[in-house]
Amino acid sequence: MIILGVDPGLTRCGVGVIEAGAYRRLSFIHVDVVRSDPKMSQDLRLLAIYDGLVEKIERFAPDTVSIERVFAQENRNTVLGTAQAAGLAMLAAAQRGIPVALHTPTESKMAITGNGKAEKIQMERMVSRILGLNTLPKPADAADALAIAICHALRPAGALQGGEREQHLTDAQRQWALASQNAARQRGVRRGM
Amino acid sequence: MIILGVDPGLTRCGVGVIEAGAYRRLSFIHVDVVRSDPKMSQDLRLLAIYDGLVEKIERFAPDTVSIERVFAQENRNTVLGTAQAAGLAMLAAAQRGIPVALHTPTESKMAITGNGKAEKIQMERMVSRILGLNTLPKPADAADALAIAICHALRPAGALQGGEREQHLTDAQRQWALASQNAARQRGVRRGM
Repeated sequence: MIILGVDPGLTRCGVGVIEAGAYRRLSFIHVDVVRSDPKMSQDLRLLAIYDGLVEKIERFAPDTVSIERVFAQENRNTVLGTAQAAGLAMLAAAQRGIPVALHTPTESKMAITGNGKAEKIQMERMVSRILGLNTLPKPADAADALAIAICHALRPAGALQGGEREQHLTDAQRQWALASQNAARQRGVRRGM
Repeated sequence: MIILGVDPGLTRCGVGVIEAGAYRRLSFIHVDVVRSDPKMSQDLRLLAIYDGLVEKIERFAPDTVSIERVFAQENRNTVLGTAQAAGLAMLAAAQRGIPVALHTPTESKMAITGNGKAEKIQMERMVSRILGLNTLPKPADAADALAIAICHALRPAGALQGGEREQHLTDAQRQWALASQNAARQRGVRRGM
């Protein structure tokens, strides 16, 4: 099972991809940061982040996209851009019928270090150890995206947070996703794409 | 010049379309609300709003998409969903190379009634009068979307808020938008869309 983790952000959006095998054996596949230029207008920045996320999702074809949950009380200067980047990751997954899971940073720290208030360096070391890396994951700030992916793989069996959909869509959800894909395809045909 | 106004929201997203002719003569084209079901998961709700906005943008082919600006200090329960809906409207416009303008509710009230603290009913009456409607615009809560479109048409000549791009993209922005469209088209071809 491939899990693609997203640490959302408008300037830097972390993406980490892992494979979860039998007995919760986890292996590293990819880590990177999708960027947008703060000098561009907001709409073009969102387009850059969306295109970058779509490229990652299509390249790694994850079974689940695991995204860090954004809270309204976070830093006022960045929270709206962060929420919008998270929204684009959800959209990109939903357009492809891929289930989305949302996890809080505390859940991620708990799952990985057993301590919901773990320091960043502790998290990076544990992420490296869990994935069998010889060095700390680079770029450092994308380690959070790997952590969110690992968190989803290691979550207690049957755990379901609000907003999390599990591996299987309901019939209504699957029909919706398929209808949306068909509509997109037909738009593409009409425009000669 | 066709202007499509968006009053962003995750449950109800207002869309109002007007035409701005010579001498700032404005005429009504369309008003509606794009909805998502609050019982669905957040990713599928975002997909529903995005698909609805794309349908409106492709149907009316606006020259500008004018969106109500979202502030971090707004209602904590809804601000993230509102910001995400605004982000999807920006994405849908940017994907089609359509310029985006952001206007605050105060700017909209000032432009339409001359009073930045105008009451809702005052706004609805003025929107009706400006567009030459015989009744108040329906649905009532989509009047805000028409107001944001009118605000863009009536803004002081040369006014440019932060984050607003005017009618003409810079060369770099146009190249980016074209590159993104081409990438989307090629992905479509690869997937047999």
